[in-house]
Amino acid sequence: MTLTDDLLSANERYRDAFDAADLQVRPLQHLAILTCMDSRYTSQGVLGLSLGDAHVVRNAGGRVTEDVVRSLAISAALLGTRACIVIHHTDCGLLGRSDEELRDRVATASGARAPFGFLGFADLEQSVRDDVAALRSIPYFPPEYEILGFTYDVRTGRLAPVE
Amino acid sequence: MTLTDDLLSANERYRDAFDAADLQVRPLQHLAILTCMDSRYTSQGVLGLSLGDAHVVRNAGGRVTEDVVRSLAISAALLGTRACIVIHHTDCGLLGRSDEELRDRVATASGARAPFGFLGFADLEQSVRDDVAALRSIPYFPPEYEILGFTYDVRTGRLAPVE
Repeated sequence: MTLTDDLLSANERYRDAFDAADLQVRPLQHLAILTCMDSRYTSQGVLGLSLGDAHVVRNAGGRVTEDVVRSLAISAALLGTRACIVIHHTDCGLLGRSDEELRDRVATASGARAPFGFLGFADLEQSVRDDVAALRSIPYFPPEYEILGFTYDVRTGRLAPVE
Repeated sequence: MTLTDDLLSANERYRDAFDAADLQVRPLQHLAILTCMDSRYTSQGVLGLSLGDAHVVRNAGGRVTEDVVRSLAISAALLGTRACIVIHHTDCGLLGRSDEELRDRVATASGARAPFGFLGFADLEQSVRDDVAALRSIPYFPPEYEILGFTYDVRTGRLAPVE
């Protein structure tokens, strides 16, 4: 069995119970989530959302980048989302790591040294505050667009607001 | 009830059934997924993955950007993933829309005109081919790193490989 065979077999089982055919492209709860690519949670799970409720943007750390702004701006302008929930989590691979260390690790594994930053961060709550502030300074969202920040604890499942 | 109150109440219910405390930061299946922010599916669901199995990177369209390369390079070098599954889907907000139309829509909603591209695409299978090729040309992944492309049909739940 190749990886493709494995994935297609799993997808056949998914289709046996598939019941999302009637959902539409506009998120029902008018929400977008920005969070980390971490494997240990889904934002739908953590926030009690159903399929169809919210856009989910994920990258290493849940950091704000141009690509995130692109995605959230389309989500709001085209598909009617009105708020973004930023969630960074405990035990993140970027937490406590400098850009230089991350660049070194990538260079060692790949043989090539990346010119861009890797967006490591030193403090979990501060990185949420920084990214909420970064998004609030972006002019490409509608006037009433709301941005809220939270931390997520991967050991307890607990979501906590960041003021 | 504010939005924060709603989210924290939902998270309390999530914690009542929380059983992911023992999962570790390195994905068990050594996989990363790159897919769209669309609300109608989770990549875990579509691929039959469990919590802890795979990193999930999501943006508008599931397109390859510098932020995606940053995320996947960290995923591979730091956290041991060995393959990326690229999934674009039917009925995507970016499908059939030009950058100019998307920029206009964002400008109308926000009052500000973004200088960057929005990565709209004309053909679903071709956009998967383009992004698989783009990732294969990136030097920041380990030598044996594998990249596979699929389409996902939001009306049927069907995953199909793109050659």
